[in-house]
Amino acid sequence: MKNYIKYDPWKIIEEGFNPDYNKISESICSLGNGKFGQRANFEESFSGKTLQGNYVSGVYYPDKTRVGWWKNGYPEYFAKMLNAPSWIGIKTTVQGEDLDLNKCEIQDFSRVLDMKKGVLERRFTAKTQSGKIFQVVATRFLSVLRDEIGAIKYTIIPKNFSAEAEILCDVDADIKNEDSNYDEKFWIEILKTSDDNNTFVTAETKKTQFQVCTAVKMELSNFSKVENILKEKYAAKKYTVQFTENEEFTVYKYAAVTSTMYYSKEKISSKTLQVLEKAYNDGFEKLLDEQIKTWDEKWKESDIIIEGDVAAQQGIRFNIFQLNQTYTGRDERLNIGPKGFTGEKYGGTTYWDTEAYCLPFYLATADKKVAHSLLVYRWKHLKKAIENAEKLGFTGGAALYPMVTINGEECHNEWEITFEEIHRNAAIANAVKIYVDYTGEKKYLADYGLEVLISISRFWAQRVNWSEDKQKYVMLGVTGPNEYENNVNNNWYTSFSAVQNMKYTIKAIDFVKNNYPEDFLRIKNVCNFDEKETEKWNEIIANMYLGFDEKRQIFVQNDGFLDKELIPVSKLAASERPINQHWSWDRILRSCYIKQADVLQGIYFFEEEFDTQTIKRNFEFYEQFTVHESSLSSCIHNILAARVGLYDKAYQFYLNASRLDLDDYNNDTCDGCHITSMGGTWMTIVQGFGGMRIKDGLPSFNPIIPKQWQKYAFKIRHQDNLFLIEVTQSGTKIQKLEGPDAKVLINGVLTEIK
Amino acid sequence: MKNYIKYDPWKIIEEGFNPDYNKISESICSLGNGKFGQRANFEESFSGKTLQGNYVSGVYYPDKTRVGWWKNGYPEYFAKMLNAPSWIGIKTTVQGEDLDLNKCEIQDFSRVLDMKKGVLERRFTAKTQSGKIFQVVATRFLSVLRDEIGAIKYTIIPKNFSAEAEILCDVDADIKNEDSNYDEKFWIEILKTSDDNNTFVTAETKKTQFQVCTAVKMELSNFSKVENILKEKYAAKKYTVQFTENEEFTVYKYAAVTSTMYYSKEKISSKTLQVLEKAYNDGFEKLLDEQIKTWDEKWKESDIIIEGDVAAQQGIRFNIFQLNQTYTGRDERLNIGPKGFTGEKYGGTTYWDTEAYCLPFYLATADKKVAHSLLVYRWKHLKKAIENAEKLGFTGGAALYPMVTINGEECHNEWEITFEEIHRNAAIANAVKIYVDYTGEKKYLADYGLEVLISISRFWAQRVNWSEDKQKYVMLGVTGPNEYENNVNNNWYTSFSAVQNMKYTIKAIDFVKNNYPEDFLRIKNVCNFDEKETEKWNEIIANMYLGFDEKRQIFVQNDGFLDKELIPVSKLAASERPINQHWSWDRILRSCYIKQADVLQGIYFFEEEFDTQTIKRNFEFYEQFTVHESSLSSCIHNILAARVGLYDKAYQFYLNASRLDLDDYNNDTCDGCHITSMGGTWMTIVQGFGGMRIKDGLPSFNPIIPKQWQKYAFKIRHQDNLFLIEVTQSGTKIQKLEGPDAKVLINGVLTEIK
Repeated sequence: MKNYIKYDPWKIIEEGFNPDYNKISESICSLGNGKFGQRANFEESFSGKTLQGNYVSGVYYPDKTRVGWWKNGYPEYFAKMLNAPSWIGIKTTVQGEDLDLNKCEIQDFSRVLDMKKGVLERRFTAKTQSGKIFQVVATRFLSVLRDEIGAIKYTIIPKNFSAEAEILCDVDADIKNEDSNYDEKFWIEILKTSDDNNTFVTAETKKTQFQVCTAVKMELSNFSKVENILKEKYAAKKYTVQFTENEEFTVYKYAAVTSTMYYSKEKISSKTLQVLEKAYNDGFEKLLDEQIKTWDEKWKESDIIIEGDVAAQQGIRFNIFQLNQTYTGRDERLNIGPKGFTGEKYGGTTYWDTEAYCLPFYLATADKKVAHSLLVYRWKHLKKAIENAEKLGFTGGAALYPMVTINGEECHNEWEITFEEIHRNAAIANAVKIYVDYTGEKKYLADYGLEVLISISRFWAQRVNWSEDKQKYVMLGVTGPNEYENNVNNNWYTSFSAVQNMKYTIKAIDFVKNNYPEDFLRIKNVCNFDEKETEKWNEIIANMYLGFDEKRQIFVQNDGFLDKELIPVSKLAASERPINQHWSWDRILRSCYIKQADVLQGIYFFEEEFDTQTIKRNFEFYEQFTVHESSLSSCIHNILAARVGLYDKAYQFYLNASRLDLDDYNNDTCDGCHITSMGGTWMTIVQGFGGMRIKDGLPSFNPIIPKQWQKYAFKIRHQDNLFLIEVTQSGTKIQKLEGPDAKVLINGVLTEIK
Repeated sequence: MKNYIKYDPWKIIEEGFNPDYNKISESICSLGNGKFGQRANFEESFSGKTLQGNYVSGVYYPDKTRVGWWKNGYPEYFAKMLNAPSWIGIKTTVQGEDLDLNKCEIQDFSRVLDMKKGVLERRFTAKTQSGKIFQVVATRFLSVLRDEIGAIKYTIIPKNFSAEAEILCDVDADIKNEDSNYDEKFWIEILKTSDDNNTFVTAETKKTQFQVCTAVKMELSNFSKVENILKEKYAAKKYTVQFTENEEFTVYKYAAVTSTMYYSKEKISSKTLQVLEKAYNDGFEKLLDEQIKTWDEKWKESDIIIEGDVAAQQGIRFNIFQLNQTYTGRDERLNIGPKGFTGEKYGGTTYWDTEAYCLPFYLATADKKVAHSLLVYRWKHLKKAIENAEKLGFTGGAALYPMVTINGEECHNEWEITFEEIHRNAAIANAVKIYVDYTGEKKYLADYGLEVLISISRFWAQRVNWSEDKQKYVMLGVTGPNEYENNVNNNWYTSFSAVQNMKYTIKAIDFVKNNYPEDFLRIKNVCNFDEKETEKWNEIIANMYLGFDEKRQIFVQNDGFLDKELIPVSKLAASERPINQHWSWDRILRSCYIKQADVLQGIYFFEEEFDTQTIKRNFEFYEQFTVHESSLSSCIHNILAARVGLYDKAYQFYLNASRLDLDDYNNDTCDGCHITSMGGTWMTIVQGFGGMRIKDGLPSFNPIIPKQWQKYAFKIRHQDNLFLIEVTQSGTKIQKLEGPDAKVLINGVLTEIK
């Protein structure tokens, strides 16, 4: 755990430059606007450690799968977030010497991400090897309102010299992914120009043939000469300028980044130049002003205030900020990548994380079409999910959604995950229920949801088999959320979820049949669905094997779990942790240690099925063996700890969740932030401390407050209402900020909010 | 299954050229002499489908491991059999046109491997595009007596033309492995020459720095000019010759292939030239004569005669021939690669196959130092096996031998195999018992065996854990011989073998302590062994969990096996088989289908522990679910079928085993032959039909004979005796060919053989 980010309620502040932390800061201070994103790389040349990253939503490349040993069923290709052409370069050279922080003596340095405004500011004073001192302020943002525009204001003060200088402002499409499987470059050049009017490169991805146009336009204090430079996949303008000692020299760089996700190939370049021209004409200050206002609106909806604990305050805002940067719900083809726009690691953009950890945030803090987009994304992939299941031997319209995907096709290739971590289907089906329960929009079932539910229930019905020995249906060869066990039998979470999915599907069928008979006929037809299929489902529901330990009165995570040596995590030496960095894989697998909530994840999802004592017994049993080496674990433990009255634990889990990246708990923030787990962090406040649930269509709150806090407050959109919930040590106050009079439950008491 | 190899008792005959079968024939007709080997590639240029392969024993390269997702504990490098510099090239060009069978009209073609002589002969008549007709006879062998020498006699008759021609005889070290992980070339040039006296290339492997010197010397009917050609990693002589219509033109090419396994880097080139010079001076006919005599001696010891079934006869001889080509036991650093000298597929050369399937062949058909070499190989790797176990978290001198190795380091990287298929340890420990029982050399325990046994027993003692639930020791997270289940708990085979290993170790400790007390002190010291360790072992022996199904009265392959849908293989559609080519991996894992003998392998190994009814019940239960998609399965099923009186089944399993490569049952002979399973084929005759066991130190036979055969006969070396066992439909005759008077058991009756 590193601790170099300064505490501040609204800002992420790095002071002083530590080259070893540069990649971490680049991740943390990433900017995005739902359409494209940029790591906090430097504008100037930099020969030190860096992970250059600019990403354009929805633009991917099918990299050829790399494996040691092929298994039947693996996908041949692997959709990857692409590192897209770079637009940020502002490279200064004086008398042949580049300004490169890696070669300078850095006299002061700060990198500040202002989350309130959505602006990144970097300041430094640096002395080059020849002794020239540069003072630089670089201010950058990606417009959230004009989501194809980025803008940089780059001010240089030559502190101890006057000289002619060259400033190179470029677009560089000759870039690659660091995680490319075979070291390929994925972009080819389509069109480029640098002339008096325009500087841009339009590049195309191999195979997928997405085009991205990256155009830039500059405004400089003065210049004596400008040279247009064109190289392969590269366009730039080199300005010759005069630096005067102690006088500010400013470069504005405007960029438009667009893709054929939104424009035809014929028009992309011209459209991009139009968009850019408009931004350029409006100017930096106007764009910045818009940016501040837009973020202000966002914060009005989604901010969470914590008083009396600045680390906690900074943590939660950072999580909310990144979630809002990553996904806006404007485009149903997009989703929330595990690293968002902060890194390229992992293929695909869509994991079960979206449904299990991100959906509640977007449901409660944004217009309902945002959550709707997330759900429709999966509906659109249904056909591919059915094909995926067919590839593995399933038939009759059973669907297995991919573990990792961008375009609906599977992007992962570890057999124990790709083929066996099938519980993702459960989260996707359950998301339909969560959405309908929350929004009250039951018509969604008829429009989209039921097709998905039927296809998933069909999968479960084929995935189980009758055990003559147990006289029960069993589910063999499964990996649960706890990836520290692989290929187990009867993972309680997966089997229980499957039962819940099938039950809900049967209910949804009845509902649609009775209320939207025409839709029902259409669905029957589309899915080739025979109502008799539910007989088998009911039989499985009634006879599913669900491990239960009579002695301990707990659900059994999977067959064989209780054969393990059950030694609590507290007995592990600190030097052995995290175990995934210290132990061999087989030792981990044989151990009792749980990577992330598994049985407890099921109890969280289907909480209403269990009484408090059951929840508590299971929590206490499993918590002692959980190492939380997934970013998706602490939030669930927080919520259940709060639920069963273990408040100190709940607070501890909150801290772990909310500052995961800021404090680099897992030593991997350099690769990018853990975006999807940030939805989980939001849940710790709202569902954990706030105790919010939906009960019979009404928002229900059972707030508690950590003793370390004076107050916390969050807002919730629920149907037509916007509520403000404020919790202090002395009580809870709920106000309605928008919408009609409403009823809510507070500590179980039905309360009218006017 | 292909069926293009003609039946013949002594020869492997391919008639007519089918380009699609070329790689298969190249594998089947491979030559080797224990020191180096050569696939049956063509001497001339060939632009068609081919897998070029020449391999030098013990010379490997640590290729960088390729995985999709790294797991802690994987080896970073991967020792691979190298494709070594090529020495066979004799390339003819007439008027600018290469003789290349891929570009010719082939008028006749045959490739004949004479197993009796160890000689490959290829004949063809081919018309080039310009209409020139060549008749060629190429005769080649790798001297078994002079195991660094290869020789080719290459005779050309120009059938319809006279012309000047060029004949290029080369050494080509600019080659690569087709299975290289990152497409690297592994050889660098050290020294090369082509002059009046010598033509050779000495090349070195990167990283491992083995040097191989490949020198050639030619003898031609006549030539008008010779040109020496040197290129990078390449040396050749180009002869200008005169072809006269219908007159034989003969080239003799002699090669010496040596490595720094046997010579210093300073001397390798000069030594190689000496060895070559001698062979050249002795000439082709003398070398050939030696070859025939040497093979004659080998066949005298190891031949098996089957009368009345030429397919069966050809099959068993092919297996014996390849085993003898692959391993001679002269060098304790070598072992029996899964493809021998017939292909490059798979890393490493040593699998548990050696101990489980090959050891009996070498014990019974060769001088006992051959089997001794195989065992000492593992003893030499003990330190690395202990390091390997430490890497996985084991301590105190516990050893886990690698799944696949050349130099003692692990060469495999599938976690479910590398970390979990730990039963390889059992075979290695049990090989000590087999060796001692067979040879009667109990001193071996004191010299080598006990150290290995103690280290393996220590591993088992740590690999189990006490299950509070079962009140037994359990072994979690294991993959048994049946690789169609992964990461299971309590694999009966592994757990039972572990118990047997520990029991034998305790016995061996007592024996060495009482009989070789000084050795015992040395071993205690070397192993840091405390006799109290056996207390724990005894406790585990007494309390190991071994799955047993009361209802069916069978051993349970592993936990959960009986939860599967138990549908016999006979109900599977032919179109679904082999399932590993038709089913996804997860479907295979969840199915009840068994890749190769698993419980039955254990019953085979420890047969004396079980009564016939137990063997039969388990055989009948498991056999119905076994798909035999490993080459190592049929032999065990043959032996147990014979044991319990299921003679028709035993015959069927024999055919599957013995003609696996000749008939290309598994569609993969193109990659090389299944060398290690050939030991299993030998076992089907001797242990299966012959019913041979060692009982209280005496050879014991319970022969049966398939009704399809008139007679079969095999020889067995046992201690100082060489026995000939002849079995006909009317009875068994055992003769002593060498050694003192002896006692054997025939059908349980103690019989004196004089």
